[in-house]
Amino acid sequence: SWINDAEICCLSQGATVRVEYGDATTTIDPTGAHAVAQAFPRTYGQRLVTFLAPDDTAGAGKAVDERPPIRVGVVFSGRQSPGGHNVVWGLHDALKAYNPHSILYGFIGGTEGLFANKTLEITDDVLASYKNQGGFDLLGRSIDQIRSSKQVSAAMTTCQNLNLDGLVIVGGVTSNSDAAQLAETLVQKNCKTKVVGVPVSLNGDLKNQFVETTVGFDTVCKVNSQLISNVCLDAISAGKYYYFVRLMGRKASHVALECALQSHPNMLIMGEEVALSKLTLMEVINKICDGVQARAELGKHHGVLLIPEGLIESIPEMYALIQEISILHNNNVPVTEIPTQVSPWAAALFQFLPPFIRREIDTEQLLAHLVEAEMIKRTKEGRYKGKKFSSVCHFFGYQARGSLPSNFDCDYAYAMMSVRRHLRGPGAIPIGKPAIHPSPIDLKGKAYELLREKASSFLLDDFYRTPGGIQFEGPGSDAKPITLTIEDQDYMGDIEMLKLYLDKVKTIVKPGCSRDTLKAAISSMISVTHVLTVMSHPLNAELP
Amino acid sequence: SWINDAEICCLSQGATVRVEYGDATTTIDPTGAHAVAQAFPRTYGQRLVTFLAPDDTAGAGKAVDERPPIRVGVVFSGRQSPGGHNVVWGLHDALKAYNPHSILYGFIGGTEGLFANKTLEITDDVLASYKNQGGFDLLGRSIDQIRSSKQVSAAMTTCQNLNLDGLVIVGGVTSNSDAAQLAETLVQKNCKTKVVGVPVSLNGDLKNQFVETTVGFDTVCKVNSQLISNVCLDAISAGKYYYFVRLMGRKASHVALECALQSHPNMLIMGEEVALSKLTLMEVINKICDGVQARAELGKHHGVLLIPEGLIESIPEMYALIQEISILHNNNVPVTEIPTQVSPWAAALFQFLPPFIRREIDTEQLLAHLVEAEMIKRTKEGRYKGKKFSSVCHFFGYQARGSLPSNFDCDYAYAMMSVRRHLRGPGAIPIGKPAIHPSPIDLKGKAYELLREKASSFLLDDFYRTPGGIQFEGPGSDAKPITLTIEDQDYMGDIEMLKLYLDKVKTIVKPGCSRDTLKAAISSMISVTHVLTVMSHPLNAELP
Repeated sequence: SWINDAEICCLSQGATVRVEYGDATTTIDPTGAHAVAQAFPRTYGQRLVTFLAPDDTAGAGKAVDERPPIRVGVVFSGRQSPGGHNVVWGLHDALKAYNPHSILYGFIGGTEGLFANKTLEITDDVLASYKNQGGFDLLGRSIDQIRSSKQVSAAMTTCQNLNLDGLVIVGGVTSNSDAAQLAETLVQKNCKTKVVGVPVSLNGDLKNQFVETTVGFDTVCKVNSQLISNVCLDAISAGKYYYFVRLMGRKASHVALECALQSHPNMLIMGEEVALSKLTLMEVINKICDGVQARAELGKHHGVLLIPEGLIESIPEMYALIQEISILHNNNVPVTEIPTQVSPWAAALFQFLPPFIRREIDTEQLLAHLVEAEMIKRTKEGRYKGKKFSSVCHFFGYQARGSLPSNFDCDYAYAMMSVRRHLRGPGAIPIGKPAIHPSPIDLKGKAYELLREKASSFLLDDFYRTPGGIQFEGPGSDAKPITLTIEDQDYMGDIEMLKLYLDKVKTIVKPGCSRDTLKAAISSMISVTHVLTVMSHPLNAELP
Repeated sequence: SWINDAEICCLSQGATVRVEYGDATTTIDPTGAHAVAQAFPRTYGQRLVTFLAPDDTAGAGKAVDERPPIRVGVVFSGRQSPGGHNVVWGLHDALKAYNPHSILYGFIGGTEGLFANKTLEITDDVLASYKNQGGFDLLGRSIDQIRSSKQVSAAMTTCQNLNLDGLVIVGGVTSNSDAAQLAETLVQKNCKTKVVGVPVSLNGDLKNQFVETTVGFDTVCKVNSQLISNVCLDAISAGKYYYFVRLMGRKASHVALECALQSHPNMLIMGEEVALSKLTLMEVINKICDGVQARAELGKHHGVLLIPEGLIESIPEMYALIQEISILHNNNVPVTEIPTQVSPWAAALFQFLPPFIRREIDTEQLLAHLVEAEMIKRTKEGRYKGKKFSSVCHFFGYQARGSLPSNFDCDYAYAMMSVRRHLRGPGAIPIGKPAIHPSPIDLKGKAYELLREKASSFLLDDFYRTPGGIQFEGPGSDAKPITLTIEDQDYMGDIEMLKLYLDKVKTIVKPGCSRDTLKAAISSMISVTHVLTVMSHPLNAELP
């Protein structure tokens, strides 16, 4: 929700949900609070809203016929992700439970349909063949953007023409940034339509203390893990080639990490690790070659390597080159002229790349090629004595994102109509126009820790795990993502725990307690206040 | 089985199977009978063997302790295919049921392990973690060949050293050809080891009147169909690109046909169709472009096209070029020099191909490239008015063949220890050295007929079907391949039916029947005999 809690809650406060208001919220990075507050004067700092099971004993809910019917629009914006249809289904059921005369419009053709006011009224009949189904084909998607003033104004006109109480935008990081901006704009222009962003994205990169995962992440990781385990078994059966598997998932490595924990491939090169260690391309290559060599010494000449889609951007020199090349590509400069038009440094790197890569940079093919070259070099120098290195390359993503959603994603998407505050996501940038940034892998988190613990065994022991296809009944059908299960996600529980401790202090330090107890309490509270003040206002922060 | 029925049957005639001998067999193509009989003097023309459930009422079976223990070896030869492990498991259980002291050796590292006598004794403990699992990693595979006299002689030496009663070769078309040849050789050299070929191959191209399908075909088609349906939903959700999906499966189009019936993509270009109609590359391209154009007229700018791996060889001019190029590649001729070294005609075609294809011919990329060029041409000529054609290419195969086997393949593989007669497969060639050839799609068969019936609806209506991942419990978990279900596979039932009719004639035409009845019977039998004689000896056949 990007607007006033009391208003937005009408959207989902149907017969089956109760709403509780909490404290006002802030940005996760205190240095960004000022900028976000300035950019979102009407929607920043709202109170936290928690949805609860209906409180039958209170009997306070209005009867269905006393609630006004509401009008809501829903639009798909962003790469298709399993579970999208169930968001629409859940929204429809919630609206009808609130008041059967409520209306839900789907915008046909994504944001283009929103701008052009092309709608389909969502009914039980319309939903019948889309429940629990993959794809976004009920409504489709198009340019996935509500950003230019023309687009924002077209969206507002549609909201007004349809007299919408709410607009639900289903999408990932960029779509939710756009949703936040649109929410602020509509409030500023006194348009009554409340904007809700729903985090549906295979990337799993829109997560924070309130959003544990995105809809579709579980399914896509399960399908990818199934395929990765298939190529693991394929590799070990033939014993003669390495699979280089690139995984769709944008900049962050969430999909790759989850898939690695699911299927136990031999290696995973995470962009976040490479960026932290500032590895060069050749250092990455050498790391892989060292793995190949260690395996060869055990008589193993096969293996599986996972490469997150965003890895290439995490290698500083590659990122710079990609930036330069993509500008030239956009200007239709032929491949042969590229070296003459980039910086001398980028030209040198470009010439070093194999010709087939210069056309389009497929990371997995680039790495496989360079690893092969390095292994040949090591063989000539007598450092490597194993069999000839051989590779097969894959890019997994398109095969997964149209999948039937897992039970987890079906249920999560259907029940997803809750209020999110992405503005306080870890990636909110402190200057310029605030936007939601993909959250990277937490290199201090438990999931990464687990991977590091097992990395050496994964590399050498071939304990491949075969999760198989997504099951809809029987054992494993309700499995959750491993990363989600092991990460300490109970942020709200921790907030409650802090409150308990504060209450305990009050209980102990009551009038009548000893002077020493009081002194100890004051001293400790001064200390904790001091520490938190320092932590909340780093030295380089611009104070609001 | 390649040798005497009575002998080989000991392998599987355990406590739970009864054997019945039928008529002597022949080749399916009568013109090949002479050549096959000459090449396989000791193993051709054996009697048909049928395995039956144990006949408890007969009580004729020997007690377990009266049966001698037997020694059998098993080797994986050929591309890994789901269910291979269950063949070993089933063989192990059958041998132990026959006599608990029987021994099963697995050859480690495929045929290389067979030549070098590198074995692993198969026990319950060894099998524990491989039951119902994909891959061939229990034993591995290597060069997949027992062909040269050196290889055959090494295999025989191992059989003699281990004192094997039987050798089971698990593989596809070529491995079963090798198995047939090895069986004949061993009989000729008085080696007691009986050779059994087990048709395990994802291609589904080793089928005839006795072998309804190969082990692994069902699983691979299910995984591919899952992925194809995922890209179908992906295509229709975004509405802006065509998927060109090439499917592993060697020369014949069985995998592609089954997957098309499972997932209902928009187009399937079968090699068998192209070969029958002698289509040129440009005719194939135009066929696809016509489909794209017809869809654009309905406002559809997305779609999914299936391409069997063997399609390219079915286009005569491409086949000739591939032959010429592959010889040059094998001689390490650089790509730039190829045009000067191939025939003028091939050189012209080679120059016509896009540069990235010249390195390695990926059919799906070639077709996508040429379709795009043709659509641009049609746009310029004003014949096509739709949106710009855009494509995404895939090759599905490696992702599927390491899969957990489906329930069908698990059971089929476990129970697969029956006798096969591939020599009479439809592809046995009439002159030279007989070998098993992949059986092509029967263009008069019911499966193909079903596809033709639905082709226009598939092309235009987007009735995509989403079978989802392989289920191991619940609805759909015991589904069989569609092609298998609808094809009229009851060959043995038909043989029985013919016998019934012959018996009926005997019953009606007994001494005492009217002269007219007898005359009518003789006249009809002369006629049927004449027709069958003509059909069995085509005009161009070399009579034996």
